[in-house]
Formats: sequence, C-alpha cells, structure tokens
Amino acid sequence: MRYSMIVIINMKKITFITGNENKLKEARAILKDFVIENKKLDLPEIQEIDAGKIIEAKLRQAYESEKATYIVEDTSLYIEALNGLPGPLIKWFLETIGTVGIYELASKYDNQVAYTSCMIGYIDEKGRTDFFEGRVKGKIVEPRGKTNFGWDPIFLPDGHEKTFAEMTEEEKNATSHRKLAFVALGDFLKNLRP
Amino acid sequence: MRYSMIVIINMKKITFITGNENKLKEARAILKDFVIENKKLDLPEIQEIDAGKIIEAKLRQAYESEKATYIVEDTSLYIEALNGLPGPLIKWFLETIGTVGIYELASKYDNQVAYTSCMIGYIDEKGRTDFFEGRVKGKIVEPRGKTNFGWDPIFLPDGHEKTFAEMTEEEKNATSHRKLAFVALGDFLKNLRP
Repeated sequence: MRYSMIVIINMKKITFITGNENKLKEARAILKDFVIENKKLDLPEIQEIDAGKIIEAKLRQAYESEKATYIVEDTSLYIEALNGLPGPLIKWFLETIGTVGIYELASKYDNQVAYTSCMIGYIDEKGRTDFFEGRVKGKIVEPRGKTNFGWDPIFLPDGHEKTFAEMTEEEKNATSHRKLAFVALGDFLKNLRP
Repeated sequence: MRYSMIVIINMKKITFITGNENKLKEARAILKDFVIENKKLDLPEIQEIDAGKIIEAKLRQAYESEKATYIVEDTSLYIEALNGLPGPLIKWFLETIGTVGIYELASKYDNQVAYTSCMIGYIDEKGRTDFFEGRVKGKIVEPRGKTNFGWDPIFLPDGHEKTFAEMTEEEKNATSHRKLAFVALGDFLKNLRP
C-alpha cells in the first residue's frame, strides 16, 4: 500500500530583471522558498552616484510596464581615496581606462582600500520598495587571475590571498557581496506577513 | 507725414531646454534670426559616457511630451591621461572629489591636457536630430579664481594666462566651448531650407 500526499503551497513569485544565468542560479539557491522567474529587460540606467536611485528608477519602470513583484541588482566599486568613485559608474571606468587603468589610478594614492558592493532593490505588488546591500572590504591590487569579469583581477578581499579573479566560482560566491545582498533580501522576505 | 511699415517675418521658434538664464541669453545673442524660448524640464539623464547619447535621450523625451523643435546642451570635461574620463560624468566627479580632488588626480599623471566640451543637440519638428560640439583644449592646473562654477578654477585654456574662473564673463564667453557649439548650430540653421 502506498500513500501519496500533495501539498499545495502558494509560493510567492518574484521576477528577477536579469539576463545573467549565473545570477539567476545564485538567487534561486538562496531564495529557496520563492519562485524566482527572470525577465531580460533592457531598462535605461539613470545617471546617478547613488546606486539606490539607479535601481529604484529601474524598478519603477518594470513595475509600470506590468504590476508585479520584481528584483533588480546593481554592482558598484567604491575606492576610498577617491571618496567613493567610481561607485555605480564603474562600467564607464572599465570602458575608458580599463582594469589596469583603475589599478594604476589607485596605486598613485597612499590608500588602496576599496569596497565592492551589490545592491538589490525589491518592489512588491503594491509598489513599495526595499533595498538590500552586501559590501565586501578589500584592496585594489595589481591585476592577478582571469581577466574576463570586470574588476575581479584587481580586487583582493580582506582576509584572503586570492583576488576575486583567482578564486573558483564557489570560492567567490562564498565571500561575495552579491551573496550577502541576497541573504539580506531572503531574511526580509521570510519575515513578510503571508 | 509719417510712414510706418510693419514687416511680418515668420521666424522659426526653437525651445531651449534649460533653466539657466545666462545660457538662454547667450543662445539668443548668437541665434539672432530665431525665436528662442525656454522651458525648464527636469529630464532624467541616462548613464552614458557618450554625450551625444545622453542628449539624444533628452531630446526624444522632450519631443515625445510635445512635438516641437528643441535644443538641449550638455558640458563635459575630457582628461587625456584618463582616456577621456570623466567626460559627461563630470558632475559626479565634482560631487565626490570636487574641483581640488580632480586637480590632485590629474597632477599625479605626466599629462595634464584636457578638453572642455559643449555639445548641443537639436531636434526638428519631424524628429530628426543633429549635434554640434564646441571643444576648447587646455590644461588642468591648481585652482585659481572664483570657485562658484564647476571646474572653471582648474581649467586653463591654451593660449591664455587666466583660468576660466579668473576671466570676466565676457572673456570666458569669447573663448568658450559653449559659444563654439552655438555658432556651429547657428551656421547649420541658416543653411536649412526655409
């Protein structure tokens, strides 16, 4: 004799605005109690030094196109000697002076401290927003390791001997700013009233 | 006996998207054959290193809100040693490290050459766009002169002994990137078929 039981749980659906499969996988691994779908929307980024405002503008655009629950993620690099520059404008530093140029720039200052940050913005079906940030402190160093992912070769997280580019994907995910941000979002979602 | 004559000329009307009275005055002085009105619209700037794309996005937004003929202007600072950074992102450099911080940064390199640029975008009633740029070559120097206008204290145009901040308004307007851009736009407009 066999018993079967079907449990129907109304799992909350969240749409992650991303075209990146790895980020989607990471989100699903951490936000296990939710159905994470993804949507690749090419939303324009506003020009801002405040990552929260950039993300909020994207959330609002997604929400206006179709009322639903969304998450948007953005990554920044804050260099202490430059009072936080480039922050969310890192993309344009990479495009103009490149990873090596950023290292050379930072090396001209006495202070090489930098923070890599992932901010996740969440908008619920009522249009309310919340933001979650994961930050990792480290140093800008001479490029080491694979060169295929942004500033990974020049960022050495505190307490580690490998740059992000020298780490395996698992090593990096274990210490990453993105993981911290997703964990913070997960805690928030768990405590929402059903 | 007195004669009076009324001449009615159908002067082209152009709306300059700006809230700045001085820029409006400058535009009117150069574009004498046109009726230059102004409209203060707070259009979001997209995140881009290409000034033309930033301006084009603004022109399109203005045009979509009301079909008319518009001009939009944006100013950039290109530092040669930084491969053109900050360009149109200058606002965020000023906000984070300030004029003195930009000078200190540039002084760490061997090359202090910089270009100050004004780009004007024009959209006609049919939605066609054209762009006009005025560039002035110079050097980043230690701050000198009034400190109330952006990077003026640290920009010394070639062939001059005064920084933009040390010049009178007339001296600055006579050499300025904005004037060059308006003159180029004026030439273009004159050659349009009536």
